[in-house]
Amino acid sequence: MSEQPDFYQDINDGFIRLDAYMADDLSVVNSARVSFGQDTDALRDKDIGLINYLMRWRHGTPFEHNAFRFHVKCPIFVAREWFRHRIGSFNEFSARYSEMPSTFYTPRVEDIRQQRGKQGNYEYTPIFETSENDAREARRAISDANERAYGTYLYLLQLGVAKEQARLVLPVNIFTEFYWTVNARSLMNFLELRTAPAAQQEIREYALAAETMFAEVMPYTYKAWVTNGRICP
Amino acid sequence: MSEQPDFYQDINDGFIRLDAYMADDLSVVNSARVSFGQDTDALRDKDIGLINYLMRWRHGTPFEHNAFRFHVKCPIFVAREWFRHRIGSFNEFSARYSEMPSTFYTPRVEDIRQQRGKQGNYEYTPIFETSENDAREARRAISDANERAYGTYLYLLQLGVAKEQARLVLPVNIFTEFYWTVNARSLMNFLELRTAPAAQQEIREYALAAETMFAEVMPYTYKAWVTNGRICP
Amino acid sequence: MSEQPDFYQDINDGFIRLDAYMADDLSVVNSARVSFGQDTDALRDKDIGLINYLMRWRHGTPFEHNAFRFHVKCPIFVAREWFRHRIGSFNEFSARYSEMPSTFYTPRVEDIRQQRGKQGNYEYTPIFETSENDAREARRAISDANERAYGTYLYLLQLGVAKEQARLVLPVNIFTEFYWTVNARSLMNFLELRTAPAAQQEIREYALAAETMFAEVMPYTYKAWVTNGRICP
Amino acid sequence: MSEQPDFYQDINDGFIRLDAYMADDLSVVNSARVSFGQDTDALRDKDIGLINYLMRWRHGTPFEHNAFRFHVKCPIFVAREWFRHRIGSFNEFSARYSEMPSTFYTPRVEDIRQQRGKQGNYEYTPIFETSENDAREARRAISDANERAYGTYLYLLQLGVAKEQARLVLPVNIFTEFYWTVNARSLMNFLELRTAPAAQQEIREYALAAETMFAEVMPYTYKAWVTNGRICP
Repeated sequence: MSEQPDFYQDINDGFIRLDAYMADDLSVVNSARVSFGQDTDALRDKDIGLINYLMRWRHGTPFEHNAFRFHVKCPIFVAREWFRHRIGSFNEFSARYSEMPSTFYTPRVEDIRQQRGKQGNYEYTPIFETSENDAREARRAISDANERAYGTYLYLLQLGVAKEQARLVLPVNIFTEFYWTVNARSLMNFLELRTAPAAQQEIREYALAAETMFAEVMPYTYKAWVTNGRICP
Repeated sequence: MSEQPDFYQDINDGFIRLDAYMADDLSVVNSARVSFGQDTDALRDKDIGLINYLMRWRHGTPFEHNAFRFHVKCPIFVAREWFRHRIGSFNEFSARYSEMPSTFYTPRVEDIRQQRGKQGNYEYTPIFETSENDAREARRAISDANERAYGTYLYLLQLGVAKEQARLVLPVNIFTEFYWTVNARSLMNFLELRTAPAAQQEIREYALAAETMFAEVMPYTYKAWVTNGRICP
Repeated sequence: MSEQPDFYQDINDGFIRLDAYMADDLSVVNSARVSFGQDTDALRDKDIGLINYLMRWRHGTPFEHNAFRFHVKCPIFVAREWFRHRIGSFNEFSARYSEMPSTFYTPRVEDIRQQRGKQGNYEYTPIFETSENDAREARRAISDANERAYGTYLYLLQLGVAKEQARLVLPVNIFTEFYWTVNARSLMNFLELRTAPAAQQEIREYALAAETMFAEVMPYTYKAWVTNGRICP
Repeated sequence: MSEQPDFYQDINDGFIRLDAYMADDLSVVNSARVSFGQDTDALRDKDIGLINYLMRWRHGTPFEHNAFRFHVKCPIFVAREWFRHRIGSFNEFSARYSEMPSTFYTPRVEDIRQQRGKQGNYEYTPIFETSENDAREARRAISDANERAYGTYLYLLQLGVAKEQARLVLPVNIFTEFYWTVNARSLMNFLELRTAPAAQQEIREYALAAETMFAEVMPYTYKAWVTNGRICP
């Protein structure tokens, strides 16, 4: 249950790390079959069939008897989308009491995107493909903005302004850090929404990393989720 | 994380068993301090102080980054109170699809109670103390009722009535079984309410057993909860 | 917002009543479009399209900015299924402090069912069709069981047994009463599960009545839910 | 249920508005007393006593059978604290699909604060009192930072950068807008935490305005909450 190499992934200047978990496919089966003395210690073929049945018919509760504790470092605008997921627990670094370190998310030149199409059907393509210069210019503008904002932040602190107020000038691409504890059912809901093509690329990278870790811990549940359209039961 | 003798307790003809957990005091500290690289691997004196501080000032979220999975066998009227606790996960034996075994809660003669006083301030005393005969008679009446009800249940099944409908005649003192997964914060809320003197004695016994298990897994959190009036943060 | 004839329905010896609500289709649109000054006061064609779009793509949160308060009288075994729905609020009659009235659910002869087929694919047919006698006999057995159980209940109370303990002998087909407050999203989840053919007939009747009331209050949301497969967004 | 002057309050360049509600003190009483035909239509003296009793002994559920829908415009750093309250519903303006207007929270000179003391016991005093010049300078620095950040935002949009990515440079003091639907119990929890002296001044102003509206809609519940230490039941 201690951290393993596979349970850590760098993402830009942040990371996602599976700090601890209490989860396996067997708990799905045993909680679904809760009954007088029918617990099993090992997963049998018919148990795998049961997991698939539960997923298909959207019997969600047996997927809740487990927990994943993630430790995440990501930009505020990513955390903002993450914290909308209410079934789960969060504790975040507080800029009211601690000074924010100078770590910002600055997209690589090839990751600067333009948006085309209509709402509900947007497409995103690298600006790079159209104009390398505009992409470089955009990255430079973001990078400069980071520095200026952080400079103002330090200046306000120097003037004696409280941390909670000095932070007002910090942009939403500065990195924050939090713990997130969630069960597999709520995690699948997160993965359904945040690995979808319509999700913003920057949170998608975190979600895809979380997906890998989930797949490793509950392989048959994961497989059933994929087989049944990646829809949360 | 496997079952240990201390994590199992018989209660009348039922039981409560801590099936698995992902919990320790350290997770409270690390999630409360989530910040750039300040995690610790062992609990220090100042960490214990922090746990007490969080409990006292009702900062509840750091107590959520953990999970306890209990397996419980108890009468339906106890389960009914238990399932009112919404922050947590339940999977219960279904009498729609399985035949209910003939196990009923019949209070011992010395556990038959009378209720005195006004609402909000009831007192319960053993009928035994006033009239041993009435207590024995009450127990006998409950025991007979169990048998008659179960007899009717079997008769209905024999007539071909669906299990989900035959169960209509089963009383709320028949035993059911379920899995319950819950974090320490929600567990403390359960313990606050269900170990209180005003709680019904029959669920109190389960709650007191759960309290012992909680105390063993998160001793400093438990101690802080007791010191601060057994109030959920 | 006061009770109207359409918002009340008798079900066997119980009822479901829409006590109050704060809900309309417009709130879905305005919350989905929350933005600088674009609220509308009346529903336009494109708003109806938006509701359908949200339902189809499972954007659920705009369906949460409303509330329905139901008052329900139903048998305990129905309430037990109902209370499994955690996103919502319940307050129930307490048999710890009040004497339970003698009202039981006794299925009509033509409603006594037999169960055929395998789990996940059960079929229920009236026993009446096979043997009128068995159906009558089953109804009589349930009716007799009610009387005996209630007799024992009164006897225990007479012996001085506390209400909370005397209730042990009451069967799960006795009627209870509760308030349930829920938003449209959670209500649609309830309706999806409890109006389904696989739901137990006795809760289905309540769910179908709730569906009628929901349809009246939020007609376009209701229509979108039906069109998109009666699946909760 | 339509908007009234008292249910709207300007806060800096934002506002809080009670858009709709389904709430009164009577619903607390009726849900607490849910029982066979004992509903009342008007609040009696003993009902007010019951509300106080429920609050004092922390019987929270009867305070959940109601709903308040607020419409809020506030800076992102305020919204960030707000959205941590999980029992309730949110829909927020999305900067992925719409251009953020140029409205920023710039504290008035007399509102620029310094922080003194230790964590858990901070005191905040106006910098103005120590140095008027530093306060003015701090305000000017924030104001300049807003302009520069918004300038970069527009520049990125002009370069063709997608809205969702251009927003990276926007600081957390830019205004956002959202709907929030919540019941009285969860609202009291919000008020307990966010009107407390330890809360950040900027969210406190919103919480105090929400408190006024709550007091108007559920006066006896409000009074009982105040009398019992402003603690959420």
